[in-house]
Amino acid sequence: MIVSINGEIVDSNNAKISVFDRGFLFGDSIYETMITFNGQIFRKDLHFNRLQNSAKLLGLKFNLPLKTIQNYVTKSIRSSEHHDLKIRLIVTRGVGDVSLDASSSLKNNVVVMTWPKPENPKWWYTNGVSVVIADIRRTSPTSVDPNIKSGNYLNNVLAYQKASENKAFEAIMLNEQGLITEATTSNVWMIKDNVIITPPLAEGLLEGITRGRLIKLGLKAGFKIVEKAISPESFVQADECFLTSTSRFVVPIIKVDKYTVGRGAPGELTLQLLDILNKEVSDFRGKNPL
Amino acid sequence: MIVSINGEIVDSNNAKISVFDRGFLFGDSIYETMITFNGQIFRKDLHFNRLQNSAKLLGLKFNLPLKTIQNYVTKSIRSSEHHDLKIRLIVTRGVGDVSLDASSSLKNNVVVMTWPKPENPKWWYTNGVSVVIADIRRTSPTSVDPNIKSGNYLNNVLAYQKASENKAFEAIMLNEQGLITEATTSNVWMIKDNVIITPPLAEGLLEGITRGRLIKLGLKAGFKIVEKAISPESFVQADECFLTSTSRFVVPIIKVDKYTVGRGAPGELTLQLLDILNKEVSDFRGKNPL
Repeated sequence: MIVSINGEIVDSNNAKISVFDRGFLFGDSIYETMITFNGQIFRKDLHFNRLQNSAKLLGLKFNLPLKTIQNYVTKSIRSSEHHDLKIRLIVTRGVGDVSLDASSSLKNNVVVMTWPKPENPKWWYTNGVSVVIADIRRTSPTSVDPNIKSGNYLNNVLAYQKASENKAFEAIMLNEQGLITEATTSNVWMIKDNVIITPPLAEGLLEGITRGRLIKLGLKAGFKIVEKAISPESFVQADECFLTSTSRFVVPIIKVDKYTVGRGAPGELTLQLLDILNKEVSDFRGKNPL
Repeated sequence: MIVSINGEIVDSNNAKISVFDRGFLFGDSIYETMITFNGQIFRKDLHFNRLQNSAKLLGLKFNLPLKTIQNYVTKSIRSSEHHDLKIRLIVTRGVGDVSLDASSSLKNNVVVMTWPKPENPKWWYTNGVSVVIADIRRTSPTSVDPNIKSGNYLNNVLAYQKASENKAFEAIMLNEQGLITEATTSNVWMIKDNVIITPPLAEGLLEGITRGRLIKLGLKAGFKIVEKAISPESFVQADECFLTSTSRFVVPIIKVDKYTVGRGAPGELTLQLLDILNKEVSDFRGKNPL
């Protein structure tokens, strides 16, 4: 594993940040999870646009150019002996007084963690995964906008506890109205009568980058895809269900709480959608040879 | 300022924590703000009970005895040349994988920060302070219980921005039903026709220790105090309004947004309530001589 802090590669056992960093004190930080293929960041612009959007929504000012942050990431990638990586980029508001007031001008801290990208296990696609519906509701956009991809993750940590207790793969979170928003680290999809459905952003969820790519590429490939509110009742009666995320792409769901989804095996359309994303990766590798 | 990490006093410029600490990654930590008089923690048991309650609500296990955590705090207090201190005690879930799953057994990190206790400025009591009603709503108890005093503070950071923009002292947060919960780091009170009113915990607020003491001591002194829902409309029409917190005790409010409270000066009953708390401190000092 490679860790860099403000562009300096450091020993991961000694990768430390001030206890006065607002990221540590208040979770006052933003982050992105990215992956690389052949040493190049996949969907790079989409991730850095989202990072800038998180910063804007949080009123977190960058006191260094975006290009410098990108260079820190590039330096970490080049320092790795691997070419397919998983990256966590964290930008904090910086070290300040122990006060909620974030109006003073601080110096951002930038942390980059990189690991060899783990292979998605084959059993996800042969057996599928189980999920639970969390009792904890997704934080309302009126309290903290879910499009701030921030260091405040207790809502999701609390929701994930139910997955952990039930040995499930993920926990799906409902909004205050009882409709599906997203899972703790993935977007949620269902398929009914060949229509592919995912909740609209208005339900209170993070605009996943894989979610956006799949809508775009899926429509182009002729699939019928709509953004529509999903109740837990309709979800468990779907023909197919799946999750998407940056590092996991598509993960078929075969069980929701005690309910079996469809025939209890990864769905055919789900696997076709995965193929679309895998094709995007092949094209990306082709354009970015080692 | 004195900082200790896991019982070791460290130079504050070099007080650092692993970037893999869940407190930094997810705000997966709990804390207490305490004060000392004559080198003794004021209302010590109430603070440590609340810390344990935060841990329980979050499912954050202590892998060291509470007594050890208390000893770390005591060591910090003894290391200071001051006797009246402000303390921030932070307990994180510890260093773990970069994963929401908190089920594995981790080693807590314990950070203690101490400062000389700042004097509450005289002008608070002669002039009073202005507050704003935040547009950001307090996170619902269905999403994250407000009684988890945690490192997830973006909801409050976002709310405080409006106070900062308006040069106000504090921002008062409403719940989803539009009723007053608390301010970003204080509890909220109003007085109408000699009845002292503060919102019940069911509105979605942290059980402030000073709030609890003031209810108990105020009732004993013969004041009429009730826990009752407060709308912003009734709040601005109060005879008196004030805030309470551990370090600030009682702070009179004389303006809410553009509305003047009462006669626009700190209220008479408000100052009597402050006297009750100051008397508690005198008694505490008497029982704990230097």
